[in-house]
Amino acid sequence: MGRLSEYRLRRRVNFYETDCAGIVHFSWFFRYLEEAEHAMWRAAGLSIAPKGDVSFPRVNAAFDYQAPLRFEDEFDIVVRVAAIGRSSMRYACTIARGADQVATGTTTIVCVSGAAGGMKAVPFPADLIDRFEVAVSPNQS
Amino acid sequence: MGRLSEYRLRRRVNFYETDCAGIVHFSWFFRYLEEAEHAMWRAAGLSIAPKGDVSFPRVNAAFDYQAPLRFEDEFDIVVRVAAIGRSSMRYACTIARGADQVATGTTTIVCVSGAAGGMKAVPFPADLIDRFEVAVSPNQS
Amino acid sequence: MGRLSEYRLRRRVNFYETDCAGIVHFSWFFRYLEEAEHAMWRAAGLSIAPKGDVSFPRVNAAFDYQAPLRFEDEFDIVVRVAAIGRSSMRYACTIARGADQVATGTTTIVCVSGAAGGMKAVPFPADLIDRFEVAVSPNQS
Amino acid sequence: MGRLSEYRLRRRVNFYETDCAGIVHFSWFFRYLEEAEHAMWRAAGLSIAPKGDVSFPRVNAAFDYQAPLRFEDEFDIVVRVAAIGRSSMRYACTIARGADQVATGTTTIVCVSGAAGGMKAVPFPADLIDRFEVAVSPNQS
Repeated sequence: MGRLSEYRLRRRVNFYETDCAGIVHFSWFFRYLEEAEHAMWRAAGLSIAPKGDVSFPRVNAAFDYQAPLRFEDEFDIVVRVAAIGRSSMRYACTIARGADQVATGTTTIVCVSGAAGGMKAVPFPADLIDRFEVAVSPNQS
Repeated sequence: MGRLSEYRLRRRVNFYETDCAGIVHFSWFFRYLEEAEHAMWRAAGLSIAPKGDVSFPRVNAAFDYQAPLRFEDEFDIVVRVAAIGRSSMRYACTIARGADQVATGTTTIVCVSGAAGGMKAVPFPADLIDRFEVAVSPNQS
Repeated sequence: MGRLSEYRLRRRVNFYETDCAGIVHFSWFFRYLEEAEHAMWRAAGLSIAPKGDVSFPRVNAAFDYQAPLRFEDEFDIVVRVAAIGRSSMRYACTIARGADQVATGTTTIVCVSGAAGGMKAVPFPADLIDRFEVAVSPNQS
Repeated sequence: MGRLSEYRLRRRVNFYETDCAGIVHFSWFFRYLEEAEHAMWRAAGLSIAPKGDVSFPRVNAAFDYQAPLRFEDEFDIVVRVAAIGRSSMRYACTIARGADQVATGTTTIVCVSGAAGGMKAVPFPADLIDRFEVAVSPNQS
């Protein structure tokens, strides 16, 4: 099977994701991004769950918000591989409701070994990183 | 130090705990109960974190709701030890805003050993269960 | 269209639903139940979102837990209409991973009018309650 | 009373904030920031709750993660006013466990009027914005 560079997940806003301003709480967008990222890993035949000594914590995450989402809105989360390093991978994410862009985000995961207090970055296992490739940006081509 | 049978935690509603009906989402009350329970364990010099082979999953949890909580409301969570068994402990919980009762709940934890797929109930370690005693109900006396 | 009495939702455990015991945090089951409930309302052509003066707060919610769920587990949430009153509706819920029962729950919603501090129970609007009927229990028949 | 430019909130990690990697899920840091921000508004005699026609949605939020937090860790959230505009305010945030820096973040809120679909930026009410001033960065002086 080929390498994956992008994944699209359609999703509906759950009641418990809204706040008393009547819109989805901003913290949820980070979870939406993660849902699409993990679905992409599954589509690649992989799981992001900690395995043996290796896990994949994030070193950064950011979102810009352009429009609110509301209860029962249906929306798309598109996650793209933006960069692949020896021991890190960066994603870009777009969230849209139909033709309306709602938010754009980025996050970087790092491959680390060791637990509590002694984590250090290690190269991604080859059979894992070989499943992904950097997406061609919609602005390039 | 004596045995603990009750713990009171004062808390304020966070923005992200509310939903688009303008009130605290009902699922949060279960987390409020847990916060007070864990604070009681800390007050007893203990931690409910999984330790070695032993952990404390819940086998039930329930709440009755009498009134809503809103953003920035200050409220009290009172958790009481309702029953202590060989390998289980039951709590009763009252949530109130000032003199107004907001909700009442119960939950039961079980002491288990073994992980994923092979959990079985085991007696509570003595040095742990000896730190608690059943609360005298406010209706008794 | 006929009346609805049951709804089945297939779902996968998200990473952020797990806790440091390695399993889904017990508070999430209440949200799973709600997701299936709201999906049933949508299947009935309705939305549970507050509309005008009327909203649908819960007066109770309970779960018994038989087995844990873990990250990426696929599971089914089945919600059934257990009772319909003039201004309340009770649901029963079963959560299962394949043939293995994971948890069973119940919850009751009430139709209320008025906001903050002045809520009172009112009859369900007829065009709403006429969309549901009590499920035949799997133990009956 | 003087203007506020900074607020420190001490907090302990709750069980439900951890994930199956054994650490606080990255989405929680955004909620920690918000807790400290709202506590600063309360310390200023204000509430960030939507009032009348005016509310304060975020237009961006970002965190860099340097170290994990674990269940029952005690930590400090320090939020500082980084910039004040006519209709927006930017905060910088540092999260630390004792002397160890855990994460740094930023977020920007905008003062808007109008609801659903028709939000537009408006100047902050004077009696509100007059309660804050930009913090002197620890690197300046």
